[in-house]
Amino acid sequence: MRGLKPFSMLTFLIIAASVVVLFLGLATGVAHAAGRRLVVSSNEDEPCKRMTAYYHDILYNNRFNNDTANATSASVTKPSPALSTSSSSNGNSTFFGMLVVFDDLMTSEQALTSEPVARAQGFYFYDRKEAYNAWFAFTLVFNSTSYKGTLNLMGADLMAEETRDLSVVGGTGDFFMARGVATVSTDATEGFFYFRLKMDIKLYECYLLA
Amino acid sequence: MRGLKPFSMLTFLIIAASVVVLFLGLATGVAHAAGRRLVVSSNEDEPCKRMTAYYHDILYNNRFNNDTANATSASVTKPSPALSTSSSSNGNSTFFGMLVVFDDLMTSEQALTSEPVARAQGFYFYDRKEAYNAWFAFTLVFNSTSYKGTLNLMGADLMAEETRDLSVVGGTGDFFMARGVATVSTDATEGFFYFRLKMDIKLYECYLLA
Amino acid sequence: MRGLKPFSMLTFLIIAASVVVLFLGLATGVAHAAGRRLVVSSNEDEPCKRMTAYYHDILYNNRFNNDTANATSASVTKPSPALSTSSSSNGNSTFFGMLVVFDDLMTSEQALTSEPVARAQGFYFYDRKEAYNAWFAFTLVFNSTSYKGTLNLMGADLMAEETRDLSVVGGTGDFFMARGVATVSTDATEGFFYFRLKMDIKLYECYLLA
Repeated sequence: MRGLKPFSMLTFLIIAASVVVLFLGLATGVAHAAGRRLVVSSNEDEPCKRMTAYYHDILYNNRFNNDTANATSASVTKPSPALSTSSSSNGNSTFFGMLVVFDDLMTSEQALTSEPVARAQGFYFYDRKEAYNAWFAFTLVFNSTSYKGTLNLMGADLMAEETRDLSVVGGTGDFFMARGVATVSTDATEGFFYFRLKMDIKLYECYLLA
Repeated sequence: MRGLKPFSMLTFLIIAASVVVLFLGLATGVAHAAGRRLVVSSNEDEPCKRMTAYYHDILYNNRFNNDTANATSASVTKPSPALSTSSSSNGNSTFFGMLVVFDDLMTSEQALTSEPVARAQGFYFYDRKEAYNAWFAFTLVFNSTSYKGTLNLMGADLMAEETRDLSVVGGTGDFFMARGVATVSTDATEGFFYFRLKMDIKLYECYLLA
Repeated sequence: MRGLKPFSMLTFLIIAASVVVLFLGLATGVAHAAGRRLVVSSNEDEPCKRMTAYYHDILYNNRFNNDTANATSASVTKPSPALSTSSSSNGNSTFFGMLVVFDDLMTSEQALTSEPVARAQGFYFYDRKEAYNAWFAFTLVFNSTSYKGTLNLMGADLMAEETRDLSVVGGTGDFFMARGVATVSTDATEGFFYFRLKMDIKLYECYLLA
């Protein structure tokens, strides 16, 4: 071969570009070779990680449920009387302003006795005059053979909607730097002292071990 | 041409590098072809999405404003007497520790009666002994013909500053996975029962529909 | 040299690839030329920014410490009696449900009198029946010659663990759009009115000035 001809040059560039693409294929994808690589799944139907779990809130309530042993949450502020009763359509309290601190069990199936997945530690409060509506911020604490680490979530629990989305704003340990969306639906309620949420947790930014 | 001379080699590398840059021009920007693509606007003056809206807080207060019908927020904890009065310069309370839950209207213009943009659902509390200063976490809930979805924000409301920045830490629906900064300024206050904030919401990470 | 031999070609590709890597080194790296560039450090040991600081919580408590002048935090809700006393192993309160608002000093060294680094403004609450365990959300407010801006953090303070990780979910000013992890450990405690946390703040997504 007598030097590079135009065609060869082009070929060469294509090869070089392929290398680039290869690296980028990783790279739109991959941040660093060492440690972890950032995978971004920007298709809503294809999260880089997905898991479903059930959140059980067992509220201590000295009027309805004074079961201290089983309770995993307690209200720490009272509803605002003016904003939580007069405006509701049926005259019942909408609990506007009641803030609940929880350390709730997350399980793999609906039953409280099914496989534990995580603890959900955080708080919610009711924030609507006319109807039930809540706001959540909490950490999913994983400490099992499957996962060790945390996911941090926050967002509006728009209880009038069949499903509503919270943001997964960060993670640690096995969920290092993760981000995503958790789709929540009410799965069961029992009076004023128990409710169960189904949480479909979808991560779209994952830092996977390289 | 008899083999590659140093200069040619350099030229070639520059060309190859250009290809890389070209691909990166897409890539720093685009994650996946299908679904949504991640656009990162790292120039503070060029957010990938921007909107301005006004936040109206109408505080229920049985001393100053017992207008239950119009109130959209209520305090659920009392200020700490020791930390909110003795240290303020003018002897007035700085409300240290008073936590307020809100379901506030966001409008497109200053007037409360202007076009509704979103509901802001969340809480703030005062957290300084010597002066007014607050901390916010809330969700902007959009449910209009323009947008459906949520943005989740948190941060310090440094009331001594003319403008202060909160973090937009996540989003859902039309704001799927968004991140950004919201620049907030106090636009009006009326006694202890109304204040209006101007919020300039700038998103720098957007997952746009492909 | 008479044209490129297979070996030379390989060498060349490796060089080209090196260029790519170099650019990716930036590029993982670089988002936009103007303004700021996004640097993603996906190796847990190589954050794009790191700093250590000490958090001092001086709790006002009218039983143990009524030192209004020095107190920087105050509880605004009472522990749930049912969930914070009966279940603890030693009969002491675990403070389940007690929420504390703080405006705490962060310093560069352990001593409260060492160089101020930031204010930590936010809240924590205790959330476990059987033992001490807390949940934090707060803003680090920097206003020094070194840094101006904020970092927003949230997460579980798993007090049973030697170290625990919170999420840095956003930033403003000099920390524009930052994300990361803060590794926290208890550095000192004095009764019920003072504790000091060591915070090792590691940012893995930085938007650096271009």
